[in-house]
Amino acid sequence: MANLTEFSLADAITVLTRTPATLNALLRGLPDIWVSGNEGKDTWNAFVILGHLIVGERTDWMPRVRIILENGEARAFDPFDRFAQKESQDKSLEQLLDDFARLRKENLAALQALNLQPEDLTRRGRHPALGVVTLSELLATWAVHDLTHVHQLSRVMAHQYRDAVGPWSVYLGVLKCAGHSAP
Amino acid sequence: MANLTEFSLADAITVLTRTPATLNALLRGLPDIWVSGNEGKDTWNAFVILGHLIVGERTDWMPRVRIILENGEARAFDPFDRFAQKESQDKSLEQLLDDFARLRKENLAALQALNLQPEDLTRRGRHPALGVVTLSELLATWAVHDLTHVHQLSRVMAHQYRDAVGPWSVYLGVLKCAGHSAP
Repeated sequence: MANLTEFSLADAITVLTRTPATLNALLRGLPDIWVSGNEGKDTWNAFVILGHLIVGERTDWMPRVRIILENGEARAFDPFDRFAQKESQDKSLEQLLDDFARLRKENLAALQALNLQPEDLTRRGRHPALGVVTLSELLATWAVHDLTHVHQLSRVMAHQYRDAVGPWSVYLGVLKCAGHSAP
Repeated sequence: MANLTEFSLADAITVLTRTPATLNALLRGLPDIWVSGNEGKDTWNAFVILGHLIVGERTDWMPRVRIILENGEARAFDPFDRFAQKESQDKSLEQLLDDFARLRKENLAALQALNLQPEDLTRRGRHPALGVVTLSELLATWAVHDLTHVHQLSRVMAHQYRDAVGPWSVYLGVLKCAGHSAP
């Protein structure tokens, strides 16, 4: 295995900063077949994924940072509602991309205004299911959560051409990914 | 299962057009830990992945389109050299992103100059390992190949924080993806 990387607030922010532009480049203006298609019954398309990312910006990541700083382990986080994005479904993809970009920018400004010091990153909070976690684990998870949904979007889009690629499907890794839902 | 999509040249081009900007947004200017890290011995980092995409633009996709149009099944494609990207390893990530964007733009201009008609999309060629394939399958594969490497890049980046996320790893799908190498 390669050596894995220690968490760095600056490094995590470089990923968090780029995600809105990445999703914008990948998705804005695409024909309906790429953004409305999902992977079958009860799976997510690009609208649902963007709605979910927006809910995270509104109700989870920075609120959890603040709960750790203000309450430590004394108060568990509110659970992440994985179905709260239903309210986003009347918006266009372009509106969702704009909402996500604006909220992310506001949240990163708020994060940087906290002026977190290295010793703050070890502060502990309580996840309602996972138990004790640290602030650095929360911030690393925020970045990897973005990457999970880039991973999912590339897979959902590729799925639409699962038949169209013909025999090449055996060489295309993304078509072999069965998805990895949360438990 | 959702209904899968028929191939459309225009739809495929919308994905192929966006990939350079997507990779640019995801990768340009990132700290070394995100772009030099891989998933362990003999796995690919962002430099190798970009080098591989550049080799495809230079030697595979459009040359194969031309072989189908000029030779049909009479001449098999040259095999895709999955290790030819070694020559790219002395360049910066920014140079690789620029090279890929320029080559893709040139190739899409050449593709559109062919003015392919619906009946052309059923023309057949011969893959050295897979046997008979059609032009539409080749073009669909070009687009899904891009998505395979977006999928891989998100996974390789996420891997660098596999430890940093702590107990959240159980909820992060991208960390459960073991990769899907070509056979």
